[in-house]
Amino acid sequence: MTAGRRPDGLFETVLVANRGEIALRVVRTCREMGIRTVAVYSTADRDSAAVRAADVAVHIGPGPAKQSYLYPPAIVEAALRTGAQAVHPGYGFLSEDPDFAEICAKNGLVFIGPRPEVMAELGDKALARSLMADAGLPVLPGTREPVDSAPEVTAVVEEIGLPVIIKASAGGGGRGMAVVRTWEELLPAYRSVRAAARAVFGDDRVYLERYVEHARHVEIQVLADEHGGVVHLGERDCSVQRRHQKLIEESPAPRLDPATSRALRAAAVRGARAVGFTGAGTFEFLVDGRDIAFLEVNSRIQVEHPVTEMVTGVDLVREQIAIAAGRPLGFRQEDVRHTGVALECRVNAEDPRRGFAPCPGVLHEFVPPGGPFVRVDTHAFPGWEVSPHYDSLLAKVIVWAPDREQAIARMDRALREFRIDGRNIRTTKELLRDVMADPVFRSGSHTTSLLDVRPDA
Amino acid sequence: MTAGRRPDGLFETVLVANRGEIALRVVRTCREMGIRTVAVYSTADRDSAAVRAADVAVHIGPGPAKQSYLYPPAIVEAALRTGAQAVHPGYGFLSEDPDFAEICAKNGLVFIGPRPEVMAELGDKALARSLMADAGLPVLPGTREPVDSAPEVTAVVEEIGLPVIIKASAGGGGRGMAVVRTWEELLPAYRSVRAAARAVFGDDRVYLERYVEHARHVEIQVLADEHGGVVHLGERDCSVQRRHQKLIEESPAPRLDPATSRALRAAAVRGARAVGFTGAGTFEFLVDGRDIAFLEVNSRIQVEHPVTEMVTGVDLVREQIAIAAGRPLGFRQEDVRHTGVALECRVNAEDPRRGFAPCPGVLHEFVPPGGPFVRVDTHAFPGWEVSPHYDSLLAKVIVWAPDREQAIARMDRALREFRIDGRNIRTTKELLRDVMADPVFRSGSHTTSLLDVRPDA
Repeated sequence: MTAGRRPDGLFETVLVANRGEIALRVVRTCREMGIRTVAVYSTADRDSAAVRAADVAVHIGPGPAKQSYLYPPAIVEAALRTGAQAVHPGYGFLSEDPDFAEICAKNGLVFIGPRPEVMAELGDKALARSLMADAGLPVLPGTREPVDSAPEVTAVVEEIGLPVIIKASAGGGGRGMAVVRTWEELLPAYRSVRAAARAVFGDDRVYLERYVEHARHVEIQVLADEHGGVVHLGERDCSVQRRHQKLIEESPAPRLDPATSRALRAAAVRGARAVGFTGAGTFEFLVDGRDIAFLEVNSRIQVEHPVTEMVTGVDLVREQIAIAAGRPLGFRQEDVRHTGVALECRVNAEDPRRGFAPCPGVLHEFVPPGGPFVRVDTHAFPGWEVSPHYDSLLAKVIVWAPDREQAIARMDRALREFRIDGRNIRTTKELLRDVMADPVFRSGSHTTSLLDVRPDA
Repeated sequence: MTAGRRPDGLFETVLVANRGEIALRVVRTCREMGIRTVAVYSTADRDSAAVRAADVAVHIGPGPAKQSYLYPPAIVEAALRTGAQAVHPGYGFLSEDPDFAEICAKNGLVFIGPRPEVMAELGDKALARSLMADAGLPVLPGTREPVDSAPEVTAVVEEIGLPVIIKASAGGGGRGMAVVRTWEELLPAYRSVRAAARAVFGDDRVYLERYVEHARHVEIQVLADEHGGVVHLGERDCSVQRRHQKLIEESPAPRLDPATSRALRAAAVRGARAVGFTGAGTFEFLVDGRDIAFLEVNSRIQVEHPVTEMVTGVDLVREQIAIAAGRPLGFRQEDVRHTGVALECRVNAEDPRRGFAPCPGVLHEFVPPGGPFVRVDTHAFPGWEVSPHYDSLLAKVIVWAPDREQAIARMDRALREFRIDGRNIRTTKELLRDVMADPVFRSGSHTTSLLDVRPDA
């Protein structure tokens, strides 16, 4: 029996190296599994829901994330001091940082995620694209290696044609990219993405892909254990985006023909096997009719994971923890059942009248919706102060229904019911309701360009 | 096309003749169906969640229910004034009152429930027992007709033996009954139930049944349309009771052998057909090993209906409305799928230190639990005043999980997370958590006497 493990092999104590709704989400599942939890928090989060919910809370630094949630020494020290055996990184922050995973391992802590070398491969988006192409996954025309000179960029575009998208190798999740539609824009965009990538990621390597103007963003949830077991949990459609950030997600993907669905699922499982993936991961694809193209892998829990939970009944965080503890998956592919339709809306504290800029402030009124088949994942409560240090996510509203039409009606009802008010607080709630009423969205034939044509979005 | 009906045959406007969480529950489904809602409210409920959520709200009288929620003229006037075509009665109040259903019909309003004559038959609990016995349902030894003299009572008990339970014909739902274990108690209990029944129901007829000391309370949810379609949606176990009031409900019933389950389901469907039942109804049974005995029918939506919704995916209020609009059931028995386990806990504003007496007061803090597979049905919010005029139900916490062990862990997590505080406010939360930890409850072998042996309950 490993030290600090329970007789059933699970951890006695897990440290949650994150904040906000996802920290609370992880604490909730740990509690249900009988696992003691350690929350870490910055000064700005001292009264947070995760701090209140966890068994132990450790202050790790001031508000700015670089000095707290992005500072591995403080997190590792908190884990060692509190006797944690494992670290759940949530999403964002250090969740896809292979160096952090290494540091955890060196300190005898289990990082709840894939092995560091797999994370490193998948975190290099150009390399991941190349590995998946080698594994037989369809990719868009583009570069197999990062490009590092203007003549090389020009040569590539001469070959694959415009439009193209220039992406930072170290980016992902919609950050560090530019779409280029004319030759005039090409080299300035190339230089600008490199400069931004250097500033944000400390790594200015970039790669190019053909850009598909009207495609859908469809991703496959994968779970893989350390014993060769790999299953998928179906698709999520995340096509409703604004500035490459997801706003609304759903499962299953609407109007996806069964053959394309099977192709996506098979590609994700093949890709996961090819790199020896373990844990919970997401394979992202562009879908244009029946054409599919691999985009990237996220090697962590996703913001939008609840829609998959609602249609499959699987608690993904529970599976992550069990896999990290070395357990084989408790079910096979044929055991996974998909029922009905789930939708998620991200309600952000952003001001629609100021270009949806984040608007930190104090919540006075905060009454989430409830009732049949409505789930709310939020760390907010009346009196909570939305900090300028972090992202503006206030709550995820998730609904389930037997069919998509009822799910949309339910989501609109839930959003309408959601009472949020406070000093300086504005939210995206009405924008989300506008999408629920949008005929293109309702038809299920929308692409990632849905909100581009909306002057208010 | 009937006046005021939509092209699809549904109502344009429904009036909700209730208050609290169930009024909000009905408004939610109406909104999802695109039906305009009218809330009626007493002075005490003028700031209620249902009033805020409905499209129109009509004041119908002062706080005491007899002058508002139990006063048909005010409700009917509100319906006619606002153009409602149908009335949803919720549970309690006028929901099982055949006279109210008649008044609705006379005023051209559809009462969302069974036909008045069926309600009258089922509302007379002695008659219902007799009708179900005629239909071949097993009943406990007892009287076929109300008993109305002391010698008759004595003769019955000489025949069926002690213990017996004396029940008001006009009672039901755990009200108006007394258990008799000795001959000395018999006649005083008989007189006392008659007197109480006369005072509470205006009807002092009583009947007798053999009392089963250690049985389970299991009920079957039935839906029946006006075209002969009858389906059941499986069992709910409601054995965790205090003073004949349900505290915790679950579906499916734990440790119920398949043959007994089939017998219960078949009995409920047979009973529904025998009386020409329409709408949503519940057939209540006592289960003792493999012996089953019919108890009574509730001809309305139940407080505990969400557990059935969670395991079947069916919105029962939606079905009630569709049936009342004359639609045939949209699914057959073989389409109903039961997945996983759902639990419901009723969180009441009651003071454990004063014998669980209701404790009205103002809520200062009210943060319901959330996250995976947790549903909360509540009308309460920070600042809400719990009125002494009505029942003490603050919230229903409902969870779903793949199995019962996980459901119990999830419920305990949710209850622990629920933050409720306020002036004079005490709740049953800790009692409910105690039950979640109780080994007999966890084993699933508990009966309705579970809490009798607990000194604190």
